[in-house]
Amino acid sequence: MAVRDFVGETAAMDGTILVTGAGIDMSLLESLREHGLRIPDRPIQPLTEEELIRGLRGAVAYVHGGEERATAGVLASARETLKVVAFLGVGYENFVDVAAADGLGIVVTSTPGAATDSVTELTIGQIINANRHIGQFLGDRYPGWRSPEELPHELRSRRVGIVGLGANGTRIAEVLRAFHTDVAYFSRTRKPDVEERLGLSYLPLPELAGRSDILVVMVPCTAETRFMIDVDVLKRLRPGAVLINTARPAVVDPHALHEAMSAERVGMAVFDGFYDRNSEIAAKLLSDFGDRLLVTGHIASHTREAMDRMVSQAVGSIKNVLSTGADEYAVGKHGGIS
Amino acid sequence: MAVRDFVGETAAMDGTILVTGAGIDMSLLESLREHGLRIPDRPIQPLTEEELIRGLRGAVAYVHGGEERATAGVLASARETLKVVAFLGVGYENFVDVAAADGLGIVVTSTPGAATDSVTELTIGQIINANRHIGQFLGDRYPGWRSPEELPHELRSRRVGIVGLGANGTRIAEVLRAFHTDVAYFSRTRKPDVEERLGLSYLPLPELAGRSDILVVMVPCTAETRFMIDVDVLKRLRPGAVLINTARPAVVDPHALHEAMSAERVGMAVFDGFYDRNSEIAAKLLSDFGDRLLVTGHIASHTREAMDRMVSQAVGSIKNVLSTGADEYAVGKHGGIS
Repeated sequence: MAVRDFVGETAAMDGTILVTGAGIDMSLLESLREHGLRIPDRPIQPLTEEELIRGLRGAVAYVHGGEERATAGVLASARETLKVVAFLGVGYENFVDVAAADGLGIVVTSTPGAATDSVTELTIGQIINANRHIGQFLGDRYPGWRSPEELPHELRSRRVGIVGLGANGTRIAEVLRAFHTDVAYFSRTRKPDVEERLGLSYLPLPELAGRSDILVVMVPCTAETRFMIDVDVLKRLRPGAVLINTARPAVVDPHALHEAMSAERVGMAVFDGFYDRNSEIAAKLLSDFGDRLLVTGHIASHTREAMDRMVSQAVGSIKNVLSTGADEYAVGKHGGIS
Repeated sequence: MAVRDFVGETAAMDGTILVTGAGIDMSLLESLREHGLRIPDRPIQPLTEEELIRGLRGAVAYVHGGEERATAGVLASARETLKVVAFLGVGYENFVDVAAADGLGIVVTSTPGAATDSVTELTIGQIINANRHIGQFLGDRYPGWRSPEELPHELRSRRVGIVGLGANGTRIAEVLRAFHTDVAYFSRTRKPDVEERLGLSYLPLPELAGRSDILVVMVPCTAETRFMIDVDVLKRLRPGAVLINTARPAVVDPHALHEAMSAERVGMAVFDGFYDRNSEIAAKLLSDFGDRLLVTGHIASHTREAMDRMVSQAVGSIKNVLSTGADEYAVGKHGGIS
């Protein structure tokens, strides 16, 4: 194969690519054949660690688009051939053990920015669903409000707090401002340019919670952010507040949430992806407050356009890593090179 | 009562006000006592013409916030006392026989602008619900898309057509532009200033339908607009299009809609309020396409804030009509005086 002349040595392995997840257009991976890689017919959805280890046998590259966990053990089993794990999305922390990959010389990449519009749209939609209780009023019956207090509020009149002003948080703020909603934010680093452009105010997290009718959590889940929305934050919310977590579930402490929903401090909570469904607290939240929880199955970035952008970006990253050992979207110890 | 000195002679009747609907804060009507009117404790929801006629007995003013029809017969029965019908909202055409009221010397007023934000929020929420199929993905299961074709599309990639660029249509366009969505419109009168400000293009209705993945209907229902969304319009839509009708149902021809949904020309349809539930075609639409219809019970303007603004505006109009016989929000032959 003449093309091997200009690709890196790793491509000479004639290895495979493991692709996981759903809704992936496999034709977008075709160009990887030039790197001597065999492309599977379709993605798989490995349900157990054993299935994942089997799927990775002989794989040079791994496109992670599913819900499986690439643990240290999984990655170690693939160390002989695996060079790159291209995660579809940005919230890789719970799905790929990047420290283990770093130790094994496996590069992990992500796809920042590719799903920003899709995540923003789902988040805004769910803010309106929760704030206006739309699900409750599906059906053609005229609602028999007994008192004006039962009426939902206009989003325009609500005070929204955004936790995390990355690409997603910023776009969400931008759309909320088009609704003329009052928006404030907390972020690890202040963004004076965004504050000025969108008319946002910055507040420390406790103060932000204290003014919020609607709190939108949009931070990656790391050791630092795990359970950052805790009892102290939730108890400050305005009574009956709406909590929107379309980031990873574990940013919110589930026990604290149960307490806040029991006290009706949190009126409605939105999740995209939920806590481990075998855990006691997940079951308890769903059984005690099922009608006040709007949960979707991690679909925020699942649109045709976002998936295609993520897969194309992942293919570019895989080529870069196989050719040069590096990529601008690498994370962990390989990150920050561009 | 000294206050009578400066109010019109009609106030001397010691009449009542009939208030209908749900969620109305009656304290907002208190100031009408100064006009010699008795305020009921709560709104009623008259279900039959007889109930409405009974409710209007002795009424000088009528705040219409429900789903009942003030027909020619109803208005004639109240002609001895009734001076003003203050409709809460703008879509009065199906609820108040304005021509009959005109003939009887009863002034009808509406509340333009009071619910624009509430209507916009519900409409945008339902656009996202329909376009992303959110209802279908409630629950914590990761979706097992079999093919990329099954994935929903980003709103940003959709071409939206808005039929009717009044206050509501304009606000909806404004928010859609914040999503970076491509928006065009049709309106009886072109709005070059709005086109320029929001980057909209104007198209005649057939051409607008021909380019639309999502068609948003936002016109009042009049003799002119009844069934304006007909077979000819619907057959031009892009396959699987989303039809959003948060205006009055009868703007869309239900038989044409059934045909377009059978042919999957229309993939999803959204209504706020539905066709007469006793009609054969309404039942047929719901039974044949229940999972592709998102119907709410005329709640678009039902927020605390919009209701309060509508009621306050109606109270102002009632005072004006009782004092001067006229009001800037009068419709029909009394309209257009301001």
